Amino acid sequence: MRTEELLAGRASRLPLITTATTASPQHPISFDSGHAFPGLLPDLTAEADRALTAYRTETLQYAPRPGLPELREWIAGYMQRDGVANASAEETLVTNGAKHALELVCRLLLEEGDAIVVTAPTYFTAIPIFKSFGVEFIEISQDVDGLNVSELEHLLLERKRAGRCSPKFIYDVPDFHNPSGVTMSRERREALLALAEKNNILVVEDSPYRKVRFEGESQPSLKALDRSGIVLTLGTFSKLLAPGLRIGWVSGPRDLLNRMVQLKSDAGSCPLTQRIIVEFCNSGRLDSHIKRVQQIYGLHRDRMVAEVRRQLPEVTLDVPQGGYYVWLTLPEDIDGDVLASRAAREGVILIPGSKFFAGSGGSSFGGKPPKNHVRLAYSHATPNEIVEGVGRIGEIYRSMQSGIRIVSVSR
Amino acid sequence: MRTEELLAGRASRLPLITTATTASPQHPISFDSGHAFPGLLPDLTAEADRALTAYRTETLQYAPRPGLPELREWIAGYMQRDGVANASAEETLVTNGAKHALELVCRLLLEEGDAIVVTAPTYFTAIPIFKSFGVEFIEISQDVDGLNVSELEHLLLERKRAGRCSPKFIYDVPDFHNPSGVTMSRERREALLALAEKNNILVVEDSPYRKVRFEGESQPSLKALDRSGIVLTLGTFSKLLAPGLRIGWVSGPRDLLNRMVQLKSDAGSCPLTQRIIVEFCNSGRLDSHIKRVQQIYGLHRDRMVAEVRRQLPEVTLDVPQGGYYVWLTLPEDIDGDVLASRAAREGVILIPGSKFFAGSGGSSFGGKPPKNHVRLAYSHATPNEIVEGVGRIGEIYRSMQSGIRIVSVSR
Repeated sequence: MRTEELLAGRASRLPLITTATTASPQHPISFDSGHAFPGLLPDLTAEADRALTAYRTETLQYAPRPGLPELREWIAGYMQRDGVANASAEETLVTNGAKHALELVCRLLLEEGDAIVVTAPTYFTAIPIFKSFGVEFIEISQDVDGLNVSELEHLLLERKRAGRCSPKFIYDVPDFHNPSGVTMSRERREALLALAEKNNILVVEDSPYRKVRFEGESQPSLKALDRSGIVLTLGTFSKLLAPGLRIGWVSGPRDLLNRMVQLKSDAGSCPLTQRIIVEFCNSGRLDSHIKRVQQIYGLHRDRMVAEVRRQLPEVTLDVPQGGYYVWLTLPEDIDGDVLASRAAREGVILIPGSKFFAGSGGSSFGGKPPKNHVRLAYSHATPNEIVEGVGRIGEIYRSMQSGIRIVSVSR
Repeated sequence: MRTEELLAGRASRLPLITTATTASPQHPISFDSGHAFPGLLPDLTAEADRALTAYRTETLQYAPRPGLPELREWIAGYMQRDGVANASAEETLVTNGAKHALELVCRLLLEEGDAIVVTAPTYFTAIPIFKSFGVEFIEISQDVDGLNVSELEHLLLERKRAGRCSPKFIYDVPDFHNPSGVTMSRERREALLALAEKNNILVVEDSPYRKVRFEGESQPSLKALDRSGIVLTLGTFSKLLAPGLRIGWVSGPRDLLNRMVQLKSDAGSCPLTQRIIVEFCNSGRLDSHIKRVQQIYGLHRDRMVAEVRRQLPEVTLDVPQGGYYVWLTLPEDIDGDVLASRAAREGVILIPGSKFFAGSGGSSFGGKPPKNHVRLAYSHATPNEIVEGVGRIGEIYRSMQSGIRIVSVSR
């Protein structure tokens, strides 16, 4: 059968990746992913046991499509404690992780050819989701205060003058931005919301790392500052508790969620993992778990920042106050793609900066996304692996500087 | 904010349902859903305990997007034992239940305005999924041998002559069809595949009840008869094991799956429930569990068929050899919608037949789907509830026949 011609237009443009399970190098040092530090994965056996006995007829049947009522209530309370005064269970939809929530937002709002606003750089896993909906990207740069709202305002005006469609939504990670690590200032948040409201554009706030703060004061979430019901917030238990539970949520205006729930064709998210989470959160274990998460990842960040400064003194970075990542700016003649592929051969996995640009990078980068960045995650590796891994990167970096390609670095 | 105008065209046409958790009547008798019989929900505490201790770094981290390798291998072996000689792990993608698999198939293949073939009646939960992709339905009737292939052949020829697009796929439930209970004969399966191949149309085989057979011989699955790689098979552990685990799969041509996996923007299906399933299946408990499932649901079916014959002698039904449902044909002047809504008020939940027609019912029904059907599920209710519930339906039915509306039936 000629399957190619059967694919929908968008699908035929997807790059082919294999579903084969390829072996990765033996014990590479992982600076690539948002995986949790294994030592922080909680013991959930008691919660699971209770979920599968006392709650068996709930946890092994289909669940209500919007989520278990108790979990939706818990999430609403969590958001209220985080400053969203009017958060309610009815405006909270449980999803199979935050990416599923993002996909639902896209399915609800996007048609082929629609425009959306993203930062440059932006969360690289969101890019293929957006692309699968055939969108046009409006890329906006960031500074130390977050998304450059005045640049966006200027672009929106330009589009209006040119008679082009208004973007459907603005997507941003305002807390410990992925990959840049920047936390948006309060002033910038308010300016963004005012601009979005004026232009009738929704704001999609993706904030998985919000509680992973090591120091400094939290800024109010975009949702907490939202006076006019334009913010859809995506949340997840992946960074609060454990990624493998695959439970996240989306909170937003009721009229949107009431439609979105119908696109949730999953017969309800897994009630077993939902119940495990409810039991964990209600047992009071979450607060102390979050404290440990903050403490351990804070130490990892300190180690990584210190090692980068020691081993890669020419590299610049803004120290993030939380989250999982540092975003390195290399000298302009050092290509992050080359660095990442050489590091992979030396058993250190990191993501080149180029992957984080949805398109050409927007007006700030002159139509060409910069090549001199890499993102390092400090979440998964041990402190010793951080020292070892950054060391290997340093050696590769120096070999690239001197133009000599090393064949192997010492372990 | 005027959210209405922000919705994608398809989304704005979705009916609004509330995300509020509305209270259902106290202990209604459920003949509506495909929920499992509570007494058949297995004890999975040992599997969960092992999954959360010995496999903690697997089950609480992100999983590989196509699924746990061991689960994909197990599914391939299961399909091989079911006659699909060339089933392989690489051509198997784990999903968040079979409906998620169906949605992925749609996302991969469908564009607004595409046509697909469905039976009339068809699985009612699939209808809104298809509709959310803006498809045109080609509805084909069934007889005791399943989908009327000659009717489909005729319609395809007509479309070709009229210069209309060929359908993207044929969707069917060949084993214990939902709702009709019909199992497609082998001859009809072969004729369907030959027609599909000749016309370059994919076949989507949805077969959740395949193992829930009480008597008679299995027909080979469409996938087992597929010589040319045109069948995508959807499977699920919901009916094999428990719905709440929310794990299903899709098996099909590699070049399609390699693209589909990229649309699976869920960061992997839940590794915890996948591992619980692997442990359960590898422990050898599955076979005896399936035997119990067959035995218990066989008794439920017998009871329901006997009660329908006793309490509703004017109703006709074909006794299904397996699955969860009986499809009742009422006398032509009895409206299934009215019967269902009156039954709901009397605490018996069933689904009116009209919900199972994707459009006008196709050429066999003269442009108007028949109103004189209801579907009763015998899976969830106890035998005593079956007697009681069918009794209440019988009283309502007789009141409709005599034109007298009863206010309350005795309990």
